[in-house]
Amino acid sequence: MKRIAYLGIPGSYSFIAAQKYFGGKINMKGAKSLRAVFEIIKKGACDAAVVPLENTTTGSIVETYDLLLDSKLSIVSEVILKIHHQLLVNNNQKELGEIELCYSHPQALSQCEDFFTRYPNMKPLFTSDTASAAKSVAIRKKSQEAAIASSDAAKIYGLKILAKNIEDNRKNLTRFILISSLPNKIGDKISVVFSVAHIPGSLFRALKAYAQNNLNLTKIESRPLYGNPWEYNFYVDFMINNKESRLQETLKEMKKNCHFLTILGRYNKGKIYEA
Amino acid sequence: MKRIAYLGIPGSYSFIAAQKYFGGKINMKGAKSLRAVFEIIKKGACDAAVVPLENTTTGSIVETYDLLLDSKLSIVSEVILKIHHQLLVNNNQKELGEIELCYSHPQALSQCEDFFTRYPNMKPLFTSDTASAAKSVAIRKKSQEAAIASSDAAKIYGLKILAKNIEDNRKNLTRFILISSLPNKIGDKISVVFSVAHIPGSLFRALKAYAQNNLNLTKIESRPLYGNPWEYNFYVDFMINNKESRLQETLKEMKKNCHFLTILGRYNKGKIYEA
Repeated sequence: MKRIAYLGIPGSYSFIAAQKYFGGKINMKGAKSLRAVFEIIKKGACDAAVVPLENTTTGSIVETYDLLLDSKLSIVSEVILKIHHQLLVNNNQKELGEIELCYSHPQALSQCEDFFTRYPNMKPLFTSDTASAAKSVAIRKKSQEAAIASSDAAKIYGLKILAKNIEDNRKNLTRFILISSLPNKIGDKISVVFSVAHIPGSLFRALKAYAQNNLNLTKIESRPLYGNPWEYNFYVDFMINNKESRLQETLKEMKKNCHFLTILGRYNKGKIYEA
Repeated sequence: MKRIAYLGIPGSYSFIAAQKYFGGKINMKGAKSLRAVFEIIKKGACDAAVVPLENTTTGSIVETYDLLLDSKLSIVSEVILKIHHQLLVNNNQKELGEIELCYSHPQALSQCEDFFTRYPNMKPLFTSDTASAAKSVAIRKKSQEAAIASSDAAKIYGLKILAKNIEDNRKNLTRFILISSLPNKIGDKISVVFSVAHIPGSLFRALKAYAQNNLNLTKIESRPLYGNPWEYNFYVDFMINNKESRLQETLKEMKKNCHFLTILGRYNKGKIYEA
């Protein structure tokens, strides 16, 4: 059975992403920080790990990109979760009006701003992650306490859903990646990072290779290298579009125009699951 | 005297950015969320506002971009802060070893991971922002409590710095923008947002205008429009490079290749201040 590391504790969104992707037939090991997850894989204590890479409401998770670039690990799969937030309480709790304290991750709380406007007596309180909020409410069993977390967290910690899908933004998707020390040789999607000289048109010339070879970009993002004022790293995802023969040509052409070019991984475009 | 809105309470990084930019000669009004800051300007209750746009360790602040695009407000200036984290305590506190609880924003706490590894007895606790952490430690005056916040927050709330520059990453810069309902007509930098059809080479064709007119991009970022699976918005910053005559030509050429193109603002490239 595969050993899979993930960010957080049982019921975290990385945990759910791993469960959806593997269909539950795995041994799982949680870690409390992204850095700790990467260490587990580097040491070989697990076969692969699931970590978040970007979110529609908060953007790219820069720390994941930085850890990927510093490690020798590769992206080998992606999974997308459509995230819904649930108000979780202990089973004896019946009334929304009785709840005084609501625990969750700051981002989850801020994604339910409209809900808190409707229940002004409910005070939002921060926890390190949504699953920990659910766990602590389940342990304390206080009637005035609630947590905002996933429906999987409700099942895991024996809580019930008192208010369903309370998020403001109905398009809250998070993209997770599976990372491993063994890179994939196949897959329809590739993630790369490269830098170009900061002179007019240099990015344009680097991107020319994709256009000439008819490969479709699905992501591009620049990140300034603040130590080197006029230099940038570019993070690009592209589809191979069944044009295998053009891949090597594109990479060769890219390298002519880049200071450096690293392939972060090759993998199949991920499915979207509800969470 | 100008009335400037900002995110947070006195001592927040938006507050400091506003102070550095205007040199202190302003009336300031804090707001507890980005949405609330934008409302203040829309209602005309302040002349302009300072909000964060991107950070070297956490990336773009997507909510600021979304609020900008939904509003009729423009970017009129930028300010960059090089952020250092300080461990703040009450004046009677002398020993690092005595501190049991350390309050701050989750991001600030996670940027001081090495520091917490050295002092394992210090438990990190979350607050909504760094300035609020400093304020609450100053109000409670308990000897076992500390906050992680800026040196300005120390001055404002009468705390002393017990450990200086405790952040892991020495390149922690945040880019703030000044927004207003009156767009600038001058400035060496322009921010735009546009979308292109999701066919191979479409982004390449849209960027061709910059390369042909010798204008230098300083940022590019794609954001998927998840409702419309194959469409993206692109956020681009570019320098006018003293080529005023080429600006209109570039925008005209861009429009040919874009579904829509909106100018988010024109402004001068910002200075970097220490905070």
